[in-house]
Amino acid sequence: MIPDKQTIILAADNIKPYIHRTPVLTSESLNKLTGCDLYFKCENFQKTGSFKIRGAMNAVLSLTKDELKKGIVTHSSGNFAQALAYASLRGAGAKAKIVMPENVIPLKHDAVLGYGAEIIYSGNMPLDRENKCSEVINETGASFIHPSNDIRVITGHSSSAIELINDTEDLDFVFCPIGGGGLISGISIGFSHFSSKTKIIGAEPLNADDAYQSIRAGKIIPQTNPNTIADGLRTSLGDVTFPLIQKYVSEIIRVSEEEIKNAMKLIWERMKIVVEPSGAVSFAALIQKSSEFKNKKTGIIVSGGNLDTSKINI
Amino acid sequence: MIPDKQTIILAADNIKPYIHRTPVLTSESLNKLTGCDLYFKCENFQKTGSFKIRGAMNAVLSLTKDELKKGIVTHSSGNFAQALAYASLRGAGAKAKIVMPENVIPLKHDAVLGYGAEIIYSGNMPLDRENKCSEVINETGASFIHPSNDIRVITGHSSSAIELINDTEDLDFVFCPIGGGGLISGISIGFSHFSSKTKIIGAEPLNADDAYQSIRAGKIIPQTNPNTIADGLRTSLGDVTFPLIQKYVSEIIRVSEEEIKNAMKLIWERMKIVVEPSGAVSFAALIQKSSEFKNKKTGIIVSGGNLDTSKINI
Repeated sequence: MIPDKQTIILAADNIKPYIHRTPVLTSESLNKLTGCDLYFKCENFQKTGSFKIRGAMNAVLSLTKDELKKGIVTHSSGNFAQALAYASLRGAGAKAKIVMPENVIPLKHDAVLGYGAEIIYSGNMPLDRENKCSEVINETGASFIHPSNDIRVITGHSSSAIELINDTEDLDFVFCPIGGGGLISGISIGFSHFSSKTKIIGAEPLNADDAYQSIRAGKIIPQTNPNTIADGLRTSLGDVTFPLIQKYVSEIIRVSEEEIKNAMKLIWERMKIVVEPSGAVSFAALIQKSSEFKNKKTGIIVSGGNLDTSKINI
Repeated sequence: MIPDKQTIILAADNIKPYIHRTPVLTSESLNKLTGCDLYFKCENFQKTGSFKIRGAMNAVLSLTKDELKKGIVTHSSGNFAQALAYASLRGAGAKAKIVMPENVIPLKHDAVLGYGAEIIYSGNMPLDRENKCSEVINETGASFIHPSNDIRVITGHSSSAIELINDTEDLDFVFCPIGGGGLISGISIGFSHFSSKTKIIGAEPLNADDAYQSIRAGKIIPQTNPNTIADGLRTSLGDVTFPLIQKYVSEIIRVSEEEIKNAMKLIWERMKIVVEPSGAVSFAALIQKSSEFKNKKTGIIVSGGNLDTSKINI
């Protein structure tokens, strides 16, 4: 089930024309502050503002013509919604159907429409959107693409690891945020094939620590009532991502809301780049434990930059 | 008095080892939004976080050994303070003396110390700091470098124009913010030598519109009581910068506080880069008059990225 070397190289090649090769940035100032040797993989500069386009595009490109005719559907009120909207239109000339809760914020709603998808409203509970998705699938035969718990999506995300490995030399560690677990699964698989000595560290909000709890319990503990500013990391692991995290991730570090905000502001201030709260969680984890990573070559996955500026008061 | 081609090329070469060649970024999304063909010159990624290092470094490098022995002094509570601190230490191995008001915010204070300068406190009125500067000069014979009204500083800033011209093709317009007028003077001189068809447009906060008023009056009207979020643009023109602006600048566009904030947030959102309020004023002006610049190749000088994140509530 785990994609082999050739499979992830092929996926990276397939999606290449549609995505950005994101830069790996360094910061003298943040190296000094932390005592570490940091390499920031800037997925905030990715098409649609986050890494999600990598997996979405790979999943869309893997569909047959017959499947495409019946349509593409997902449920997401976050970055995957925009990514799948864009991937469907650019990769397959098709309008994706995105199931969103009725209380979705206007910014996200408008972005999805802007990227050319159709929105289907559901109730506001997780079960409501799953039911609505099932309805759509039953009626149309559309292909469902899950935002994280889908091996085609995960395989697409591995392309970010390949780029990071090519742009650095023998990283000791990589810090990666965990939401549904799709990104860290893809990153882990990429490193396992091309830089197997690099250790993978997961980073999670303390207020949405289902991955930490699941690893401890040895089974999936779904996230209930997450209360975190890192809105991309509120979802639970799935049956595809959990075993991959069990297999590959060395350690999960949990960070407070204050630590997330501080890390985000430090990146803004010192690197002059915009990251969203979820995108700063891996750096927050590194700061918390920086003494344990002194002088180590450490990759930091900055997962996205879709900051909701309407919530920012100046 | 206006530096010739050779002089600004020499200055650009002299400061090159100490500064970044900043990128020129484009944004499909902002082109679509404005209907213009925009080229953002990103001085927010410059050393010390703004364009100021260009002029500060050129001024420091132009001092003789004897002058350097007696020291370097300026008054600034803004980006020039950090720039001169850095330029003195790296360019001449000397600690600059920076006169700052007693009520300077801790962030700026710490940044100046971090860049290796000595802080000398003055009272909080503009006259207080000038008097304190004069005291220092009388006591030590230190060389005074004005943040904007100094031809060595202006000549250093021309290097940004040279880079922008090299990285684009035949710009129709360049939008540049006006504070003390040092940046727009340097940019104007650069374009006059190497791309003389490009028109220079000044951008100013409505609440600190001394350049607009001065041009109308035909004489320097000092800024009194500026009340703008664009803290880098509160200062008045000087006897060096005013005639250069008279000579070179085609038009000055004034923008409201709301327009500045909107432009800043648009750059954050769409380009994922951090700009400070002053750094977004030129883009705010372009947005206000975008219908007049449809499809025109237009440079936008993004002057700095030293955002005070302590003022941002999330």
